[in-house]
Amino acid sequence: MSKIEERNKRHKKAMQRKKEHIDEKIAQATIDKGVMVVLTGNGKGKSTSAFGMLARSVGHGMRCGVVQFIKGLWDCGEHMLFEENPLVEFYVMKTGFTWDTQDREKDIAAAVATWEKAAALLQDESVDLVILDELTYMLTYGYLDKPTVLSALENRPPNQHVVVTGRNASKELLELADTVSELSETKHAFHAGVKVQKGIDY
Amino acid sequence: MSKIEERNKRHKKAMQRKKEHIDEKIAQATIDKGVMVVLTGNGKGKSTSAFGMLARSVGHGMRCGVVQFIKGLWDCGEHMLFEENPLVEFYVMKTGFTWDTQDREKDIAAAVATWEKAAALLQDESVDLVILDELTYMLTYGYLDKPTVLSALENRPPNQHVVVTGRNASKELLELADTVSELSETKHAFHAGVKVQKGIDY
Repeated sequence: MSKIEERNKRHKKAMQRKKEHIDEKIAQATIDKGVMVVLTGNGKGKSTSAFGMLARSVGHGMRCGVVQFIKGLWDCGEHMLFEENPLVEFYVMKTGFTWDTQDREKDIAAAVATWEKAAALLQDESVDLVILDELTYMLTYGYLDKPTVLSALENRPPNQHVVVTGRNASKELLELADTVSELSETKHAFHAGVKVQKGIDY
Repeated sequence: MSKIEERNKRHKKAMQRKKEHIDEKIAQATIDKGVMVVLTGNGKGKSTSAFGMLARSVGHGMRCGVVQFIKGLWDCGEHMLFEENPLVEFYVMKTGFTWDTQDREKDIAAAVATWEKAAALLQDESVDLVILDELTYMLTYGYLDKPTVLSALENRPPNQHVVVTGRNASKELLELADTVSELSETKHAFHAGVKVQKGIDY
């Protein structure tokens, strides 16, 4: 047998083992339920990943609700893409960045009003996916009541997916989640003096 | 001054400092160029995040090209959402998962043919964003020639953004990238027996 033939044969064997392993894992995964995904850490891609799930879900014809805490005033591409889509409801916190307003009481009022929209989505069985973008900050700043938020997440309709993004997700959020990805920033163009880029950053 | 007033005042001061810091960083970021983003690591959200950038870019009216290595045979929501959008060109590697084909030579031929589509996009100045989904595996398996791939990425049009996803991105890819996020898997519903979920996983 030639060297290449040998390599191809080894490859086939390895891939057969891999396929068996994967097929077995797929066979074991039998639970069908709404999952809670938490995307946290300092790296780029948390909200972006949530919006990727939104794009997928809309592609499948699922009903989606998006509540954006903090990032409200940006002219985001995803907002422009989905704002007229009948499958997607968007709610945006009106005060924008908390370091722009610099007014704690106004921020708390805005957070509470925005949370009401989230709470309504988390009770609506016809909504398949809820994205709570940057929710974690509302909890770390103490703008929202933690038990209220956790209870709404826990008691949502059993088949509803929910995605929570933001740095420093609390222990309780991580415990409640089915899937957690932590994004770490290895390198960021911004620190090398590159401006925020349309499509990539917003 | 009451306790709450004091707290609000401290908050205002902290947020002013934060705003100054952020404004300064924004003022320093003056370079305008196409960025290369690498999303790697074992965690969930690499391709999802790339598709979030696609959604944003399409929202801004940008022209996009997507080349999917490996994941080709899935009936993905993002594919369904974008396949008829005139702003997006999709190329999908036909053989699907390499552990399904189990044929190294066929996989290499498919990888090379798929790479030709990627190479064409990376030379096309009218394309604003190129997503090379799961490209890293083609390099770790040795299916594609590394110098060819690196040179095509490096010599793309200066304003073109490119996003590369996949585990185990090589040192050279990380060096070439402007932004790198590493996603680590803290928890995954699949390991708890939950089936892959429409909208969330595909």
